[in-house]
Amino acid sequence: MPRVKPEVLKSLVKSMFEAAGTPAEEAEIVADHLVRSNLYGHDSHGVVRTQYYLGLIGEKIMPGAEVEVVQETASTAVLDGHWGFGQVTGRVAMEMAIEKARETGIGMVTLSNVFHTGRVGEYTEMALEHDMIGMAFGGGNQPQVVAPTGRTRVLGTNPLAISVPAGEERPFRLDMATSVVAAGKMSYYLSEGRPVPEGWILDSEGNPTTDPADFRPRLRDMVDSYAKDRPLRERGSLLPFGGYKGFNLGVFNEIVGAFLAERGQERKRGGFAFIAIDVSKFRPVEDFKRDVDGKIRTIKASERRPSCDKVLVAGDPEHFTYLERSRKGIPIGERLWGELIEAAQKLGVDAEAIVEEEAV
Amino acid sequence: MPRVKPEVLKSLVKSMFEAAGTPAEEAEIVADHLVRSNLYGHDSHGVVRTQYYLGLIGEKIMPGAEVEVVQETASTAVLDGHWGFGQVTGRVAMEMAIEKARETGIGMVTLSNVFHTGRVGEYTEMALEHDMIGMAFGGGNQPQVVAPTGRTRVLGTNPLAISVPAGEERPFRLDMATSVVAAGKMSYYLSEGRPVPEGWILDSEGNPTTDPADFRPRLRDMVDSYAKDRPLRERGSLLPFGGYKGFNLGVFNEIVGAFLAERGQERKRGGFAFIAIDVSKFRPVEDFKRDVDGKIRTIKASERRPSCDKVLVAGDPEHFTYLERSRKGIPIGERLWGELIEAAQKLGVDAEAIVEEEAV
Repeated sequence: MPRVKPEVLKSLVKSMFEAAGTPAEEAEIVADHLVRSNLYGHDSHGVVRTQYYLGLIGEKIMPGAEVEVVQETASTAVLDGHWGFGQVTGRVAMEMAIEKARETGIGMVTLSNVFHTGRVGEYTEMALEHDMIGMAFGGGNQPQVVAPTGRTRVLGTNPLAISVPAGEERPFRLDMATSVVAAGKMSYYLSEGRPVPEGWILDSEGNPTTDPADFRPRLRDMVDSYAKDRPLRERGSLLPFGGYKGFNLGVFNEIVGAFLAERGQERKRGGFAFIAIDVSKFRPVEDFKRDVDGKIRTIKASERRPSCDKVLVAGDPEHFTYLERSRKGIPIGERLWGELIEAAQKLGVDAEAIVEEEAV
Repeated sequence: MPRVKPEVLKSLVKSMFEAAGTPAEEAEIVADHLVRSNLYGHDSHGVVRTQYYLGLIGEKIMPGAEVEVVQETASTAVLDGHWGFGQVTGRVAMEMAIEKARETGIGMVTLSNVFHTGRVGEYTEMALEHDMIGMAFGGGNQPQVVAPTGRTRVLGTNPLAISVPAGEERPFRLDMATSVVAAGKMSYYLSEGRPVPEGWILDSEGNPTTDPADFRPRLRDMVDSYAKDRPLRERGSLLPFGGYKGFNLGVFNEIVGAFLAERGQERKRGGFAFIAIDVSKFRPVEDFKRDVDGKIRTIKASERRPSCDKVLVAGDPEHFTYLERSRKGIPIGERLWGELIEAAQKLGVDAEAIVEEEAV
């Protein structure tokens, strides 16, 4: 698989969004977000989304849209994103939560009319440089997750992210779907023709299965269905993480993410809630960080058990991937790379020049 | 197993705390809390704790202690419980969070120097009558939980509770340990002489086991160890719920529950954080409740899958137990009942009169 330098990838993707009519500063934010997702190993939220987003511009994504403050108190706000890039409006929302936390100790901002914000960990990490805790709840996207004893899809994969500043240790950074795994993984297993691990998905009857096509149809099945007028296999569902407990945390994500943000407009697609907590309003920041460091060290020092990998704390997997990819470049599938270059050229972007210039 | 009317149990327990020097209004709160825990089926937080608490009065529990406001902003506060009953100081903290949320949309209050608050769901439920969302995070109690790939205890069972008001449906009420199960369950299996289900505990070497004595020594082993001067079997650990994700949510609970509350005193025992969110500052309450109702109905209407129980939403298990126990009385083991009566008599409480009067 070819590896591409992060700067090259960002420059290419940014140029593409600009060529499609996105203001330069927004294109910068979106490209930066996508490439950082790749750097952290969250490829499903990385540059693979470029063409998807480009295709929705003017329809579900409105570059340059103004964020509107619908309701506001000293510590809270409700924002209408007016379908601007989620990567842009999400930052506006989190910045506002941080400002409010600086004044009153805690700030909470919800955001509606937003299509996709990308990796939600991005926003909670914004709190770190202010010595604040950041939280983000996404809720109400397309139902894909089944209740622990249920048979049908009832809940989105509703992501949850939390960032906490540490002292000498790396920050604590949790960024997770409330399903067992992100739905994007199924596409990967489908394209690789491999079965998924047990305990991830159910078929449409609610039976455990390891065939990713039970969850999401293969492209050739869709073509077949169309050509031969045969019904497609019904779609299965993703299991929630952590059974009853994890499922209900997913439900809560929808409650704060969507129901506290929703503006009742036609093109509903749920929403997001962002919380910032100013550590200094509770304890001296250095004391707090020392305690966080201590906990992280205690956990990492706990011996790993027989036949297990080493003990990790939230943020470690992303960190190790980041180190490797910053150094060696981001692995991009041949097909995706080809498609990106082609799409760039169609938009009039001189992809070759970008690739060459940055390679120097 | 004998069943005791909730009012009888509450009257008995309240009299015992009063006889042990607890102010009447505090004894009322603690007794009410313990009995409601039983009514909801959380027996490990119910009247079984009575003698334990009584034994700690004057040592780790100081009836009548004043709660001190250590630090305060418009939306946050740090409280020192000064080792008053957790059931009392926890209510003070949540009431303050609710007041702040009424002013600024969201309130967050942390509480340190608190021994045990009982069932944390109790506090989040206080938000419901104000049309607010309540959250509670407990962190930093005795380490019993192992990291997903670890071998030794590194984390408390750090409880998390969330309550959300609904319209015609019952409120959403999640009240959970961040371990697979509460540690109290092991005592039950030990006393019953039964193996625990797979996936709950590890032995001291980090190997999966179903013998509860691998987690916590049997009383007779402790006596044996003492009498014959033999070392006790090393203690094993509880697994976290939901693997890497659930474990790190438990870590976060400790961060907000303990590290944002800790006052660095000698008798540290972690702490609690309470958050109240005023729904009306985000959306019209009726719209919000209609959406919560809708979600609860969608989930419950999703067909249950082959060989599974019916689909439940957070709060359902507690509700069904509550209905049954309010009607039929609370099941109390013969031994526990005998011990309570005896302890009451030693305290000079006329247990027989209470039992008879309420039975009329």
